[in-house]
Amino acid sequence: MGEHVYKVIELVGSSKTGIEDAVANALTKASATIRNMRWFEVVETRGYVENGTTAYWQVTIKLGFTVDE
Amino acid sequence: MGEHVYKVIELVGSSKTGIEDAVANALTKASATIRNMRWFEVVETRGYVENGTTAYWQVTIKLGFTVDE
Amino acid sequence: MGEHVYKVIELVGSSKTGIEDAVANALTKASATIRNMRWFEVVETRGYVENGTTAYWQVTIKLGFTVDE
Amino acid sequence: MGEHVYKVIELVGSSKTGIEDAVANALTKASATIRNMRWFEVVETRGYVENGTTAYWQVTIKLGFTVDE
Amino acid sequence: MGEHVYKVIELVGSSKTGIEDAVANALTKASATIRNMRWFEVVETRGYVENGTTAYWQVTIKLGFTVDE
Amino acid sequence: MGEHVYKVIELVGSSKTGIEDAVANALTKASATIRNMRWFEVVETRGYVENGTTAYWQVTIKLGFTVDE
Amino acid sequence: MGEHVYKVIELVGSSKTGIEDAVANALTKASATIRNMRWFEVVETRGYVENGTTAYWQVTIKLGFTVDE
Amino acid sequence: MGEHVYKVIELVGSSKTGIEDAVANALTKASATIRNMRWFEVVETRGYVENGTTAYWQVTIKLGFTVDE
Amino acid sequence: MGEHVYKVIELVGSSKTGIEDAVANALTKASATIRNMRWFEVVETRGYVENGTTAYWQVTIKLGFTVDE
Amino acid sequence: MGEHVYKVIELVGSSKTGIEDAVANALTKASATIRNMRWFEVVETRGYVENGTTAYWQVTIKLGFTVDE
Amino acid sequence: MGEHVYKVIELVGSSKTGIEDAVANALTKASATIRNMRWFEVVETRGYVENGTTAYWQVTIKLGFTVDE
Amino acid sequence: MGEHVYKVIELVGSSKTGIEDAVANALTKASATIRNMRWFEVVETRGYVENGTTAYWQVTIKLGFTVDE
Repeated sequence: MGEHVYKVIELVGSSKTGIEDAVANALTKASATIRNMRWFEVVETRGYVENGTTAYWQVTIKLGFTVDE
Repeated sequence: MGEHVYKVIELVGSSKTGIEDAVANALTKASATIRNMRWFEVVETRGYVENGTTAYWQVTIKLGFTVDE
Repeated sequence: MGEHVYKVIELVGSSKTGIEDAVANALTKASATIRNMRWFEVVETRGYVENGTTAYWQVTIKLGFTVDE
Repeated sequence: MGEHVYKVIELVGSSKTGIEDAVANALTKASATIRNMRWFEVVETRGYVENGTTAYWQVTIKLGFTVDE
Repeated sequence: MGEHVYKVIELVGSSKTGIEDAVANALTKASATIRNMRWFEVVETRGYVENGTTAYWQVTIKLGFTVDE
Repeated sequence: MGEHVYKVIELVGSSKTGIEDAVANALTKASATIRNMRWFEVVETRGYVENGTTAYWQVTIKLGFTVDE
Repeated sequence: MGEHVYKVIELVGSSKTGIEDAVANALTKASATIRNMRWFEVVETRGYVENGTTAYWQVTIKLGFTVDE
Repeated sequence: MGEHVYKVIELVGSSKTGIEDAVANALTKASATIRNMRWFEVVETRGYVENGTTAYWQVTIKLGFTVDE
Repeated sequence: MGEHVYKVIELVGSSKTGIEDAVANALTKASATIRNMRWFEVVETRGYVENGTTAYWQVTIKLGFTVDE
Repeated sequence: MGEHVYKVIELVGSSKTGIEDAVANALTKASATIRNMRWFEVVETRGYVENGTTAYWQVTIKLGFTVDE
Repeated sequence: MGEHVYKVIELVGSSKTGIEDAVANALTKASATIRNMRWFEVVETRGYVENGTTAYWQVTIKLGFTVDE
Repeated sequence: MGEHVYKVIELVGSSKTGIEDAVANALTKASATIRNMRWFEVVETRGYVENGTTAYWQVTIKLGFTVDE
């Protein structure tokens, strides 16, 4: 982590499986347009409930990536 | 999410396995008395430690459900 | 939880797999020098990203243990 | 506010119009089953968006009422 | 704290004396209808002032109890 | 907003109508003694409930004004 | 809210009228370039004061929209 | 709590005895210049330690009083 | 408070009596190994409930002490 | 820090140079009317931007001073 | 600050020197693509440590700019 | 930042000069006993005031270092 400038964006990934998979889905989508992703922080974990069980996990991350390379 | 009124309650689910399972246990218990559960938010994740490992995950959720249907 | 005094320390555990495993790695390391660990609270969940996916989960916990036994 | 005990519950009111009306809808629903409502605090203000405008305001309140009269 | 599900409710206890007594009054009232109370957390401490002194301490607690026994 | 020093005070405005009017009432009262008011931030929105509806909105603001002109 | 990825951006809308109108102005501007807006959350409510009254309400929202459709 | 405007100030009271007494000392001092004090909220509780015990409790309160009577 | 370096640790003191006594118990335990304790801040106040009353108060403090003398 | 009562006020200092100088400007202004200033805490650090660089740093402090000497 | 709509983005600037320079580096980078930058708020200040001293200061800002001119 | 376990401690550094120097003093002191320091986060910035100016800056950091090498 040298003398760079980073941008931090907020994404919500969804998954029927769990928290880690919801984050993975967000990263997969983001990697289509963003190079040089470096770190994320989980800032909110929610779920959408249908018929008494978790239909979708919805995990909000802050994602940091280099903007000066 | 139309023009409804929702109630939000706080539950702590426990599990020997992990976070997702602790939430599932809380939802299973809640579904015995609450119909129309819609969403939850994880507000605290703790663990009870025995013999140097996690004996129980304890996950606190806020659970929202419709009160006007 | 009787009339004891507890100390709370902050640790960051890492894992290639996920949140529960990162916490387990922190507890394993801590148990080498700390007896009587009682509970933890997850206070931050981050990830280090390489090549568009999570290379390491990094989970910060507050870990409580008895200091008066 | 004398030597009473109060209970505080969390409700989400919805409205097509705005924040005050969403709170009013929550209070109307609550007053069907709760007597002695005393105060509320707005803890979250959200909106559901359809076709580029706010379809529903969704306002979360904490509602306090006397439980010992 | 085994593999249970807990419910957490929010109460405000009042007292002319002080913080501990305000919490005691809330617990006494709650114990009339709730069995298996396990823990509380103080989340707000306020006072109502009359004639330049504290007429009532008003202490808000989150109270956890077992729902599955 | 040049090289000034500002003071920030906290006020609670009340209104039977709604949030904007409660803030307006606080500003009207403050303007009797404070010149050079510049900005405010809403920090708390509460209501006092009578007979199942909002009798008074009570909105707490932080109010900034220049002290060096 | 199915298995999508959402992006969340932060906007400040202004209005001479009030909070709801400031949000509406932000949504109108955003809808010129963003399709599939889904929800917002109000995260800050401020006002710019001139001549002792609110010249502009300035409401900061987090705005979520689908990025994978 | 009618259609008034309140001012909220922040005070730190000290006491060798405990939290309630530190608040009382702050109220006594404030009552010398402020009429119509109505409520307070405890926002910070600290202590100054000498020779291994609490020499002074230092309790920060927000104190609200009517400004329009 | 001169040009020193301080360390801040987190402790939980317990007491059957109340908040001040729980803090005193934590300080007594800490003074066995730490010299030069200077201040503390209360960061969490909880209680363990048995038979409908508070069996133990559990007060978490951050405790600061000089490390460079 | 003996058995005193302190008042805490909020000020915003500005500077073209940086954070420390903005605080110094606030203290200089405050010292014209307040004796016995004791401590401050930085609660917000903002900047006003013109032509792509920081025109003014704006640092908000809480300033504590003795009111009973 | 008239009746505009602003966008707020999050950037991390780095510097070997200090906080103000890290912010300046973020603004310089941002000004290459963003016109009409108006204000920033410092939301996190971190440092990367090598050989016992700060190798890089890393300062996270929220940066606001006009989107409707 | 590979698959390590880190410990995070809290330190307060002091300086007559400013924020960066206060952090440097804390790191210098810490490096006498801690190897492998990796990062810090500034969590509180305070000052001690004498004669109307800042006598000492007091900056609290969380300091992370590797415990498993």
